[in-house]
Amino acid sequence: MNIRPLHDRVIVKRVEAERTTASGIVIPDSAGEKPDQGEVLAVGPGKRDDNGKQIALDVKVGDRVLFGKYAGQAVKVDGQEVLVMREEDIMGVLVA
Amino acid sequence: MNIRPLHDRVIVKRVEAERTTASGIVIPDSAGEKPDQGEVLAVGPGKRDDNGKQIALDVKVGDRVLFGKYAGQAVKVDGQEVLVMREEDIMGVLVA
Amino acid sequence: MNIRPLHDRVIVKRVEAERTTASGIVIPDSAGEKPDQGEVLAVGPGKRDDNGKQIALDVKVGDRVLFGKYAGQAVKVDGQEVLVMREEDIMGVLVA
Amino acid sequence: MNIRPLHDRVIVKRVEAERTTASGIVIPDSAGEKPDQGEVLAVGPGKRDDNGKQIALDVKVGDRVLFGKYAGQAVKVDGQEVLVMREEDIMGVLVA
Amino acid sequence: MNIRPLHDRVIVKRVEAERTTASGIVIPDSAGEKPDQGEVLAVGPGKRDDNGKQIALDVKVGDRVLFGKYAGQAVKVDGQEVLVMREEDIMGVLVA
Amino acid sequence: MNIRPLHDRVIVKRVEAERTTASGIVIPDSAGEKPDQGEVLAVGPGKRDDNGKQIALDVKVGDRVLFGKYAGQAVKVDGQEVLVMREEDIMGVLVA
Amino acid sequence: MNIRPLHDRVIVKRVEAERTTASGIVIPDSAGEKPDQGEVLAVGPGKRDDNGKQIALDVKVGDRVLFGKYAGQAVKVDGQEVLVMREEDIMGVLVA
Repeated sequence: MNIRPLHDRVIVKRVEAERTTASGIVIPDSAGEKPDQGEVLAVGPGKRDDNGKQIALDVKVGDRVLFGKYAGQAVKVDGQEVLVMREEDIMGVLVA
Repeated sequence: MNIRPLHDRVIVKRVEAERTTASGIVIPDSAGEKPDQGEVLAVGPGKRDDNGKQIALDVKVGDRVLFGKYAGQAVKVDGQEVLVMREEDIMGVLVA
Repeated sequence: MNIRPLHDRVIVKRVEAERTTASGIVIPDSAGEKPDQGEVLAVGPGKRDDNGKQIALDVKVGDRVLFGKYAGQAVKVDGQEVLVMREEDIMGVLVA
Repeated sequence: MNIRPLHDRVIVKRVEAERTTASGIVIPDSAGEKPDQGEVLAVGPGKRDDNGKQIALDVKVGDRVLFGKYAGQAVKVDGQEVLVMREEDIMGVLVA
Repeated sequence: MNIRPLHDRVIVKRVEAERTTASGIVIPDSAGEKPDQGEVLAVGPGKRDDNGKQIALDVKVGDRVLFGKYAGQAVKVDGQEVLVMREEDIMGVLVA
Repeated sequence: MNIRPLHDRVIVKRVEAERTTASGIVIPDSAGEKPDQGEVLAVGPGKRDDNGKQIALDVKVGDRVLFGKYAGQAVKVDGQEVLVMREEDIMGVLVA
Repeated sequence: MNIRPLHDRVIVKRVEAERTTASGIVIPDSAGEKPDQGEVLAVGPGKRDDNGKQIALDVKVGDRVLFGKYAGQAVKVDGQEVLVMREEDIMGVLVA
């Protein structure tokens, strides 16, 4: 059983960054909203513009994305915890 | 007696997820808004865009949907408690 | 003397649901905004879209409607108390 | 000396409803914003839509209108106290 | 030295209403925002609509206008105190 | 080294008004936001309208402008303190 | 590993201004939000306008930009701390 996200929502599986690896993303322990990263499992069809047409999302399944630690809402699907967030909550896509 | 929802509203019958089944959706007991799921009983004709045309909803009758636990407003129709919510409150459609 | 509502306003005469009838709508006694129902006595011509054209309402005179208990503003016309609310405050139309 | 209202503003002379007459509008003494009625003395040319065209108001001089008791701003013109309000604050037009 | 207002701003010289004259505007001493009047000294070219075109203001130099007592911001130009306000803050134009 | 402002931002060098000169602008010592004046050093290309086209600003380099005392953000460029503000914060252009 | 920013986000590497150099930008030690500067490492494809078309950003890779000290969110990529901010948070581009 899986989730097909509506609108501009994205299903993300959180992936812990290797905090001690020099080439990995290391998130500073500063106060406030801390970024995090994950893998996109599913994307919605996009929000509708003023003419009612859906605008496809800019992220796709498999993307490694950066988002705020408190972005989205956690649910468990098939025993696996995933996040449902809006594409707006995603700051960027990590590229190798 | 049934409800024909207006605009972008959706009538949802709450369905408890099997929290102990490995293949079911298990909602973590974390603080804050907890997601929940249900079955769509009726959908409105959609909101109107800037030109006054109605945009059909993306969910349909029979869909199993995921939503925030406090989404919508509970009413009893024919002795059955249902939720009236906006499509915007629905995070995704569960697919088998 | 009657009221011709402006814009997207609707005149509704509150009708008490039979709370003990199995086939009627029974509103739970939970805290917060409680839904209620009534009969539409008059409807406005609708709001104007971005081009200044009026969009006719989706409810019509005679509809039995469901709304939040605190929706609208109560006035007495010809000794009869009615509610003036916006169509937006109406959640759905009850169908037999 | 009179006032020519700008935009979507309306000049209204408050008229007390006969509270004891069966056929008049009687405003309940409930808490919160209480409706009231008056006669329209002057109307503005209307707000502009997104293309800059003015949308004529839906009320006209002479209309008996229903509005919230605290709607508008009171000024005295030629010794007569009137209200300057937005058409949005008018709930409906009373028809005989 | 004078001010050329930007956008939808208007330069107004406050004029005290004759509060004791029967034919003048008399502002009630009620609590809250009190209306006031003045003469328009200069008007901006207007705000831009969604297509970037400027919409000329509805008030012109020389108009006697009614506005909220706390509308605008007072500055002194050539020893004369004037108000810089938005046209939106003007309720109407007084006509003889 | 200079600043090229983005969007609708304007670089302004604050100029103290001669408060004792009869022909200068004198700002009253009232409470609240006090207006001030300055010279425009640089202007951005303008905000984009709904079609993505940039709307040129209405102020230009060299203009003497009036703005709220707390408008903008102070930075020092080449040892000179300037203000970066939005054109929206500018009330008008002073003309000789 | 790098970040490809989404929408109107910009990746900026903070660069300390030489505060004692007469020709450099010196940020005053006043209270409140303090501006800062940095170099643009990557830019998103831009936000979409009302017709769903992306509007390219006005800053480009290599630009030296001025922004509020608390703008954006700090992340470490390949051991280097960078800021992810919206173009809206950038006040201007420094030119030599």
